Amino acid sequence: MSVSENFRGKRVLITGGLGFLGSNLARQLVEFGADVVLLDAMLPLYGGNEYNVADIRDKITVEIGDVCDKATVDRLVKGCHFIYHFAAQVSYIDSIADPWRDLELNCAGLLNVLEACREYAPEAKIVFSSSRMVLGKLEYNPVDTKHPTQPLSLYGTHKLTCEKYCAVYHRTYGLSTVVLRISNPYGPRQQMKHSKYCILGWFMRQAMEDKEITIFGDGNQIRDYVYVSDLVFQFLRAAVTDEAVGGVFNAGSGVGSRFVDAIEMVVDIVGKGKIKHLPWPKDYENIETGGFVADMTQEKKIFGWNQGVDLREGLKQMCEYYTAHSGHYW
Amino acid sequence: MSVSENFRGKRVLITGGLGFLGSNLARQLVEFGADVVLLDAMLPLYGGNEYNVADIRDKITVEIGDVCDKATVDRLVKGCHFIYHFAAQVSYIDSIADPWRDLELNCAGLLNVLEACREYAPEAKIVFSSSRMVLGKLEYNPVDTKHPTQPLSLYGTHKLTCEKYCAVYHRTYGLSTVVLRISNPYGPRQQMKHSKYCILGWFMRQAMEDKEITIFGDGNQIRDYVYVSDLVFQFLRAAVTDEAVGGVFNAGSGVGSRFVDAIEMVVDIVGKGKIKHLPWPKDYENIETGGFVADMTQEKKIFGWNQGVDLREGLKQMCEYYTAHSGHYW
Repeated sequence: MSVSENFRGKRVLITGGLGFLGSNLARQLVEFGADVVLLDAMLPLYGGNEYNVADIRDKITVEIGDVCDKATVDRLVKGCHFIYHFAAQVSYIDSIADPWRDLELNCAGLLNVLEACREYAPEAKIVFSSSRMVLGKLEYNPVDTKHPTQPLSLYGTHKLTCEKYCAVYHRTYGLSTVVLRISNPYGPRQQMKHSKYCILGWFMRQAMEDKEITIFGDGNQIRDYVYVSDLVFQFLRAAVTDEAVGGVFNAGSGVGSRFVDAIEMVVDIVGKGKIKHLPWPKDYENIETGGFVADMTQEKKIFGWNQGVDLREGLKQMCEYYTAHSGHYW
Repeated sequence: MSVSENFRGKRVLITGGLGFLGSNLARQLVEFGADVVLLDAMLPLYGGNEYNVADIRDKITVEIGDVCDKATVDRLVKGCHFIYHFAAQVSYIDSIADPWRDLELNCAGLLNVLEACREYAPEAKIVFSSSRMVLGKLEYNPVDTKHPTQPLSLYGTHKLTCEKYCAVYHRTYGLSTVVLRISNPYGPRQQMKHSKYCILGWFMRQAMEDKEITIFGDGNQIRDYVYVSDLVFQFLRAAVTDEAVGGVFNAGSGVGSRFVDAIEMVVDIVGKGKIKHLPWPKDYENIETGGFVADMTQEKKIFGWNQGVDLREGLKQMCEYYTAHSGHYW
C-alpha cells in the first residue's frame, strides 16, 4: 500500500494546524484525500496563519480553539484515525519568561490529546513533534536517539516530559504513539514576525528588507537544517509504519551545515542584506548545546527516507515563496 | 562544622511539612535550633497530619497553604537558607485518575519554589524529594543514578520532569539544587488511612487490627526499605554537602528485602494478622518495575552515611509508635 492510500478517506486531526509544520503537512494530506481537521488557537506571535491554508480552505475543517481546552480536544479526537500534535509553546525564550504557561501548553495540552485518545480513539496513530532541545549539551555527533537527555531549558524539559507521556500511554495504555525529534526546520509558511524561533526565516526576511543581520559569535556552530518537505515525508511515514509505534525518531536532514554558511547562502540567494558579528549575550551561552547533526541511519531504514532537499535548493524555494507572499507574513 | 551547626538559627522551609518525611525532618531541625517553617495544604487522604508535630508545635511555624499558590510560596521562600520540597501528589493511582492535577501539584508546585528562589533566595539550598519511580523497568541491580529513566507512570514522569527542573535551574540559573531519589520509606508518622502508598504502613495497620493482609503474586519482589531516620540523615547531609549541589542521589538503605519477608516480619512483630496471596490485577502488572535495590556507594562516600537501621528494628520502632498513637492515624 502506498503512503497516500493509508490516508485516503481517513480522519486526521492536526493540532497547531495553521502553523508552519501543521499547514505544510495538511496540504499533502488533502492531496492524499484525507479528511483533515486543523485545531489552532491563533495565539498572537505564534506560527498560526490562516493564509497558510487559504488555497485549500474549502477542503479542510478549521477549528479555532485551544489544545488546553479539554472539551474541544475530546470532541475533535472522536473518530480520528491519525493525530498530529504540533500545538505548543514554541519559543524557549518565552518558556523562561512564563514557565507555567509553557507547562500548560506543552504538557497539559498533550495530556488532553492522549487522555482523549484513551477514551474516544484508542486505535488512532498519534505523532508527537518533539525537539532536539531535549538533549542538552551534546556528547557526540551525529546524534542518535540513544543520546542522554539533559535539557538546558524548560522548553526542552517539557518536550522531554511529553516524550515520556507518549511512552507511558503506549506501554501502559496501549496507545500507538510515535515521537519525532525535529532538528532545525525551515521552508515556506513559517512565521516571519519575530526572531524568537525559526531564525533562518527571520534572517531571510532581514535580507529581503536589505537590513543588517546580526550573528552572535563566529557562527561556526553546526546545525541540521531540514527542509519542510522532508519533514512532511517523515511525518507521513512515521504514522503508517507499524515498526515505528512506541518509538522515538530523529526528524532531520542528517547533514551538518555551519550556521554562518547558511546565513551567507541566504544573503547570496536573496541578493541583499549584510552580515554583522556580535559577541554572545550571557544568557544565550548557557543554552547553547554545541554543534548538532541528526543521525538519520535508523530513520532512513525504517521510513524509507533517503535523499533530502539540499540546503541551497531549499532556501531558494523558500525565498521564492516569501517573495511572492511576503505581505501575509510580515 | 558538624551537621547541626549548619542549621542553627537558619531559616528552613519544608513544603509538605506536616507529612511523613517533612515532619520527621522538622523534628530533627528543631533539635538543631533551626527556624523551621512548614507549608502544608492538608489535602484529604494525603499524609499531612497536625499530630505529627503536636509536641514541637510551639517551636515551629505552620502555614496551611498550597504550593500551587505562587503568592504563598513567594512569601515563605523569602529569607530562606534551606528549602526541602516534599509537597506532591504522592499516589501513582491518583496520577492515573487525574493526570492534570498530578501535573499541577508536582510540576507547577516545584516551578513556584524554584522561581521564588530565583527571585527571593538565590543562595538557598533546595532539596527535592524524587522517587525511584523515575526509572521504569530496571535493567540492573543495585541501581545507581546513571540508570536509564523510562518511567512507567505519569507519577514517575512528573518526578523526572522535576528532576530536570532542578538541573535546569542549577545549570542555567545557578541555583543550588540537590535531588534525592527515595526508595521505599517507612517509619513513624506516615499516613495509615489507605493503601495507595506506604504499603508497609497500611499492612502494619491491618495486622494491628488482626485482619487478613492481601499480597499480590508470590511477594518475591525485592524492595529497598529505608527507615525514616536514615532518610532524615541523608536529607540533612544533602543540604550541607557542597559536592552534592546540582547532583542526583539515591536515598535508600542499600539493602534488598523480599516484600513477603517484610510483611511476615510485620505480622510477627505485631503478633496479629494473617497473610493471603492473590494474583496480580492486570493494571498493577504494567507498572511493576521488577526488583529494586538502591546502590548507595556514592552516597555513603559523599554524605558519610554508613550503617542504616535494620528492617526488623525499624519495624519494631514503627509498631511501638503506632501502638501508642494509633488514634491519630486511623
